[in-house]
Amino acid sequence: MNILVINAGSSSLKYQLIDMTTESILAKGLCERIGINGSNIEQKAGGKLYKKTLPLKNHVEAFGALVDALTDAEYGAVPDLSSIGAAGHRVVHGAEAFTGSVLIDDTVMQALRDNIPLAPLHNPANIMGIEACRAVMPDVPMVAVFDTAFHQTMPRRAYLYGLPYEYYEQYKIRRYGFHGTSHRYVTARAAQLLGRPIEQLKLISCHMGNGSSFAAVEGGRSIDTTMGLTPLEGLIMGTRSGDIDPTVIEMLMTSTGMSLADVMSVLNKRSGLLGLSAGLSSDWRDVKIGAQTGNDAALRAAEVFAYRAKKYIGGYIAAMNGCDAILFTAGIGENDSFARALILKGMEYLGITLDPERNQTREEALISADESRVKVFVVPTNEELAIARDTLALTGTIYTRYHSPAIERSLV
Amino acid sequence: MNILVINAGSSSLKYQLIDMTTESILAKGLCERIGINGSNIEQKAGGKLYKKTLPLKNHVEAFGALVDALTDAEYGAVPDLSSIGAAGHRVVHGAEAFTGSVLIDDTVMQALRDNIPLAPLHNPANIMGIEACRAVMPDVPMVAVFDTAFHQTMPRRAYLYGLPYEYYEQYKIRRYGFHGTSHRYVTARAAQLLGRPIEQLKLISCHMGNGSSFAAVEGGRSIDTTMGLTPLEGLIMGTRSGDIDPTVIEMLMTSTGMSLADVMSVLNKRSGLLGLSAGLSSDWRDVKIGAQTGNDAALRAAEVFAYRAKKYIGGYIAAMNGCDAILFTAGIGENDSFARALILKGMEYLGITLDPERNQTREEALISADESRVKVFVVPTNEELAIARDTLALTGTIYTRYHSPAIERSLV
Repeated sequence: MNILVINAGSSSLKYQLIDMTTESILAKGLCERIGINGSNIEQKAGGKLYKKTLPLKNHVEAFGALVDALTDAEYGAVPDLSSIGAAGHRVVHGAEAFTGSVLIDDTVMQALRDNIPLAPLHNPANIMGIEACRAVMPDVPMVAVFDTAFHQTMPRRAYLYGLPYEYYEQYKIRRYGFHGTSHRYVTARAAQLLGRPIEQLKLISCHMGNGSSFAAVEGGRSIDTTMGLTPLEGLIMGTRSGDIDPTVIEMLMTSTGMSLADVMSVLNKRSGLLGLSAGLSSDWRDVKIGAQTGNDAALRAAEVFAYRAKKYIGGYIAAMNGCDAILFTAGIGENDSFARALILKGMEYLGITLDPERNQTREEALISADESRVKVFVVPTNEELAIARDTLALTGTIYTRYHSPAIERSLV
Repeated sequence: MNILVINAGSSSLKYQLIDMTTESILAKGLCERIGINGSNIEQKAGGKLYKKTLPLKNHVEAFGALVDALTDAEYGAVPDLSSIGAAGHRVVHGAEAFTGSVLIDDTVMQALRDNIPLAPLHNPANIMGIEACRAVMPDVPMVAVFDTAFHQTMPRRAYLYGLPYEYYEQYKIRRYGFHGTSHRYVTARAAQLLGRPIEQLKLISCHMGNGSSFAAVEGGRSIDTTMGLTPLEGLIMGTRSGDIDPTVIEMLMTSTGMSLADVMSVLNKRSGLLGLSAGLSSDWRDVKIGAQTGNDAALRAAEVFAYRAKKYIGGYIAAMNGCDAILFTAGIGENDSFARALILKGMEYLGITLDPERNQTREEALISADESRVKVFVVPTNEELAIARDTLALTGTIYTRYHSPAIERSLV
């Protein structure tokens, strides 16, 4: 079966068509600038590049263009829509309604709409993507795979903030965590690499890309993660601040005269590596080169980035009372030996010793020294494949793990 | 020499008179409701209680009442003002200008005023206290002892937030940390208890009272601490939230219609243990009793409180690559075996094992098991004595560790 994996943004549509018999990518594409001047589609399939600038007024038109590209006689990957068995949609925020992936129906759509206040930027785009897909391929079963679902196993000691409890009850203000699909994929793979059942393992998954989050995964269940109510909390990211004293917001408004919206925009778009490096770059690769060639602003950004990561690893080892393996994944995690070395330097007391040569890898590999009590791996993530696998599982033998009784009834 | 230690709030004045030859307390008192109806003074000296309700329009009048009480023929501690050799003032925020205690002069006063934007509630009260003291005892030398000073040794990787660097340069927005006088006192005492030079030690000082902060102290220098720009960040406290996703502020304003000032007030005054226990109590003792007697709201508050503390300890062990001793101090830290046990439960991987019997103490004692690689102590704090010792040192042989060139010149 071929499965179409969709990641819809407010003005973009990323997709992959995956042949699940071999788990190989048949086509990979991107619609950009949807609803904006100069919209276009680009696709790679069978070694051929398909590229077209055309008006894409909305996500439905983008989906039409996507189908045209996938079924193009010369540049396409399949003869027609009947070759697409199911579609899997990435959805950012499942809140507490979804503890796993689900077949999409009207009740699920309503739950996604109900969660918009928790993800006002992401969920509306995801909903548009699903609705467009439904309009263009009404007969293709669809699955929603949530960034938050994997973290729904967190105990309350980890997901509650120190706020009046009524705000959790009334507004569902709590830690949700994101990148769950990646953390789940990577930890499952690590169990295979370790040759041990995941139920017995204590793992720390370090997803470091433009957005970054770590997760503590004990017995295959996420018990804590660095992102919170939103993807702003936690680690230093490309442009996101991560943790700050909450009073910083008030003081920035007072000091600079910025509005709350301005400050939130600064925290999300002008902070992190970009801010610490005084505007040098939000891209770790630039920061790294700067740090290695004597640029003090870049070195400063790298130091803060690595130090905060180190402390979170220590915190999660305390939370789990041990750690079998630490896993590095995503853009920075998979490709950057410098970042990994900077984070894990001087952690022998915790049983962590990198092997400098092994650490040079950019592929799946053990990178800790033989004497390291905690094993360290590079484990490339593949969120699209994880989404496709869930989609296959749910559209083959239907199963569900989510616990909203209303939604459960609607599926029975 | 007798030293008067002053802790001035916006409507209160706490004081102790300490005989430094024996480091014993000669008198201990409190002026309350200064500038408000029903102002009063209460003092204990030589086993006698002095209590008076009288109008105290401002801090100068309060200081007058304090001098009357201290020199009262029947209830006082000394015959006249000449028996007070020096005064030591607690000052909350020294910002980057002060890395140690200082003799107070006009330049120091100006620096304190310059720091008001960083501590808009605390520093004006501290300044009023100093000015009142000066007005009433013009000939007594005075010293300022800062809550922030001990943490000025933090490296930039620990004190910088992931913000645009210009906000640090222009507005000095960074982590400062507080309770420095306590962390310094307790870690110095721990080195004595361990019989080792503090320069060789890695210590974690856990100050837990109504406000709580932990500090990682390596070689006698604070290298990290949980409170940040303000005392709001970090651990769960009596009424303070500690760490939250910065977006919580925006979402609370949107969800509830509260103003920013309202939300900040909630985070400071209605959160923490009080909020998590759904209004049960901000006092750990009540929360503990609730948690031990089946009140789920209290148990929830205790769980979140202890879990966050545990993660910070793990983070600091990672930061220092080890730990010789963990020190519990202040109201909860010194008196509550339940809190200590909850925090340190299941930390054997990190080398920490409490001895349940030893842990019953409320006095200075080793409370870890013999096999514990990390020693755990209860070390009662004494911020007043620490302030008095600094005051003695600076008014005896004058020394200074602060590094503002302008201020340094003024002292030379």
